[in-house]
Amino acid sequence: MGSLPNQKQENGFTGASIKPLDPEEFRRQGHMVIDFLADYYKSVDKYPVRSQVEPGYLRKRLPESAPHEPEAIEEILQDVQKDIVPGITHWQSPNYYAYFPSSGSIAGFLGEMLSTGFNVVGFNWMSSPAATELESIVMDWLGKMLKLPSSFLFSGGGGGVLQGTTCEAILCTLVAARDQMLNKIGRDNIGKLVVYGSDQTHSALQKAAQIAGIEPKNFRAVQTTKATAFGLTPEALRATIESDVEAGLVPLFLCPTIGTTSSTAVDPLEPLCEVAKEYGMWVHVDAAYAGSACICPEYRHFLDGVENADSFSFNAHKWFLTTLDCCCLWVKNPSALVKALSTYPEYLRNKATDSNQVVDYKDWQITLSRRFRSLKLWMVLRSYGVANLRKFLRSHIQMAKNFEGLIGMDKRFEVVVPRNFATVCFRISPIEIGKNHIVSKEDATNEFNCKLLESINETGKIYMTHAVIGGVYVIRFCVGTTLTENRHVNLAWKTIQEHANALLSMS
Amino acid sequence: MGSLPNQKQENGFTGASIKPLDPEEFRRQGHMVIDFLADYYKSVDKYPVRSQVEPGYLRKRLPESAPHEPEAIEEILQDVQKDIVPGITHWQSPNYYAYFPSSGSIAGFLGEMLSTGFNVVGFNWMSSPAATELESIVMDWLGKMLKLPSSFLFSGGGGGVLQGTTCEAILCTLVAARDQMLNKIGRDNIGKLVVYGSDQTHSALQKAAQIAGIEPKNFRAVQTTKATAFGLTPEALRATIESDVEAGLVPLFLCPTIGTTSSTAVDPLEPLCEVAKEYGMWVHVDAAYAGSACICPEYRHFLDGVENADSFSFNAHKWFLTTLDCCCLWVKNPSALVKALSTYPEYLRNKATDSNQVVDYKDWQITLSRRFRSLKLWMVLRSYGVANLRKFLRSHIQMAKNFEGLIGMDKRFEVVVPRNFATVCFRISPIEIGKNHIVSKEDATNEFNCKLLESINETGKIYMTHAVIGGVYVIRFCVGTTLTENRHVNLAWKTIQEHANALLSMS
Repeated sequence: MGSLPNQKQENGFTGASIKPLDPEEFRRQGHMVIDFLADYYKSVDKYPVRSQVEPGYLRKRLPESAPHEPEAIEEILQDVQKDIVPGITHWQSPNYYAYFPSSGSIAGFLGEMLSTGFNVVGFNWMSSPAATELESIVMDWLGKMLKLPSSFLFSGGGGGVLQGTTCEAILCTLVAARDQMLNKIGRDNIGKLVVYGSDQTHSALQKAAQIAGIEPKNFRAVQTTKATAFGLTPEALRATIESDVEAGLVPLFLCPTIGTTSSTAVDPLEPLCEVAKEYGMWVHVDAAYAGSACICPEYRHFLDGVENADSFSFNAHKWFLTTLDCCCLWVKNPSALVKALSTYPEYLRNKATDSNQVVDYKDWQITLSRRFRSLKLWMVLRSYGVANLRKFLRSHIQMAKNFEGLIGMDKRFEVVVPRNFATVCFRISPIEIGKNHIVSKEDATNEFNCKLLESINETGKIYMTHAVIGGVYVIRFCVGTTLTENRHVNLAWKTIQEHANALLSMS
Repeated sequence: MGSLPNQKQENGFTGASIKPLDPEEFRRQGHMVIDFLADYYKSVDKYPVRSQVEPGYLRKRLPESAPHEPEAIEEILQDVQKDIVPGITHWQSPNYYAYFPSSGSIAGFLGEMLSTGFNVVGFNWMSSPAATELESIVMDWLGKMLKLPSSFLFSGGGGGVLQGTTCEAILCTLVAARDQMLNKIGRDNIGKLVVYGSDQTHSALQKAAQIAGIEPKNFRAVQTTKATAFGLTPEALRATIESDVEAGLVPLFLCPTIGTTSSTAVDPLEPLCEVAKEYGMWVHVDAAYAGSACICPEYRHFLDGVENADSFSFNAHKWFLTTLDCCCLWVKNPSALVKALSTYPEYLRNKATDSNQVVDYKDWQITLSRRFRSLKLWMVLRSYGVANLRKFLRSHIQMAKNFEGLIGMDKRFEVVVPRNFATVCFRISPIEIGKNHIVSKEDATNEFNCKLLESINETGKIYMTHAVIGGVYVIRFCVGTTLTENRHVNLAWKTIQEHANALLSMS
């Protein structure tokens, strides 16, 4: 800190004049951070994937208050390396197989840079026409890639919008459905509305229901079973609905999933939409993870029936090279969204909106302010092209198949549920564990697999997470990180086997 | 498009292997975009501030579908310049005085780059400890800078969280308040809950109430008047509450504002909190715009009384050099938020959470996934330091004072409401307009000022927006863009005068 005057200059503060957006200083520091990140990607496979710090590690390292005087970028970047990187779980590591991926790419990164650089607040068309128009165009492009029916596209009377996450997409559509229904049956019937998912549906649905004021006891997580690979059956749905209707309740909203979080199970859209239709329910299809794969013709059949849904979303930030956050939502009836979510205060009034010729996306989402997210999606689509994007997704699926094959060759292991995409749910089988113990119960098996997973994750060599499906503890191996190659998958399998050997020999 | 093989290589696609995150390619393209943006900032004052395109301009320029084959970054950046930049309203232009600023800076940009580069999904502590811990630390730093009572800081049992926007902050606190109240009075009383703001409160409050399932007729926009500079009076609030209570309704939530959107009016926190306390209401203080200024001791008095509120938020992306989006929310009772917003599905279970030693921010907000926003706030605080941040805010306020002085010297104009911060609400006075016309009515004055504003904005030289306060149409001149200097303000005034001359001479 001996060179304060210099540091001030470096940060754009030169004596009396304060220039935090000086173009040449922007250039200098910007190049520095690009190099920092390029070097990070070069060595990201060397870091322990799951951070190994203990709770509270950072408070011990950082001062108690913000500095009074400016600090140099060089110093700050050193601290990023020294204090922040050890506390990062490296989602971009090729050895990351946990949760679902957070799929980064050069194009996605550049799009985010441009969006941050322009830093426009595109709440309505007027506030930055390009932000609105590019979003509508790109959502039509992507809708066509997914072969969504034209009723979901702007050209067919529907339309797409970029939100942050699926949680927001579900909340917005649920609120639209709620208000549509309450306008029919009277607002004081809010306590009668029922929301349906399965016991495999993402917690986002329950959270959205909570936020939207749905009576908590009217949330249904319909049971699924191994017999249908944990997909929701129309029969189970119908039975639940019928009993609700008998009790005087009003079925409101169904959220089937294409690729559940626990096991990437697929709910059958066609028959489920038929049941929902009978009861006048809104159907929102959550394809957060697996939607990406449906741009490949051989996976598109998973979306069959979407034409009878009301809305559809997937996360481009999960497995589509578009950095966090970027959830793509299409609706058939934008005016239902707009009716539930619009406000038009005087200070936002403008000619374009009054002309009814433009889309004002603020009325399609929770927040007023919104980032220029379409830039990154546009750059991903253009930089890679449809053909390569398909190739990229298929390469992950191929790696997952390879992993599945490796499991198949080791009789101690089993794949617990069928693999649909690039996620494999496996475990050491009960028989193997029961061999040395007298127990062969599920409890002991679950406990063993839990121990196995923790012993692997602790090493930092790879990172996987777990799920419990139908009472069975499974280890999830999800391929999808941009840097992962087949050699990483093979090494991961070796690591898993080594830990299994060690644990089994001790048991 | 004659050099496809080359272009493929440039995008990281080399034949069979697909490398969208190749470090050297990342470096090359990253540097290119840094230069693009540095050049943009160098010339941003040359662009028409408000975009001059017509609705639908972009659809005419872009293809109908995404490209099948990859395109080169050089080509894409050319298209950004050619097709996107004309459709941008330049919020970073020094000639931008519209709405509130979207305050960019080198440090904010670099923080966003690092966040995007690491691309972690920090929903809980485990998923990236640094993301959670840095956020808690930085929110304590910032809370201390604002001299928030310790009950809002982690050290005092409260805590801070970074959300996207104020809309989310209000929705989250409203849902927490709602569930706390319904747990007392029974869930079937949701139709009785009443939410209070003033007729100057941001539309975010009404939207949050809509989303949270508050009966629309139970939303109160209590009238304000010029007599109190459009601040909400405790007397008016009390009268409204009393009449609601008499009608059997239940007062739930009050949202006073420090710096309203229309005129930067300030609601008096101390007496308003007293009234709210009597009725057991949750008070959320919305300081979206003016919160920043309160890090200067001479503005801190606007927050007096905040110690009796339940939650407080301001937008660091508005006037605090932290690019969109970044809303800072503090709450006294985090467990109220967590009770209303938490879910803990099996696939997210982990030791750290079970130990109760960590914060899991997913339970403090609407969405599960969340970006590493604290990096940019941390970099802003360190790169500039508290002293310079104050200096920076004061320089904007000084420029607004200068502008006010210029208005004062031209008898045709008037400042309509007192200036509190860096926003001036002014107009051509009725007398001036009535001089040549027989009318001196407010309607004619409003219409004239509306015309004046539109004629100025159409030129693209500067961009201002309007508000209607107490029936009076005002032009808002908001200083806060990072690149704005006093010379820009002087030029803006000259432009305004020229247009006034022209319009007045025609009338």
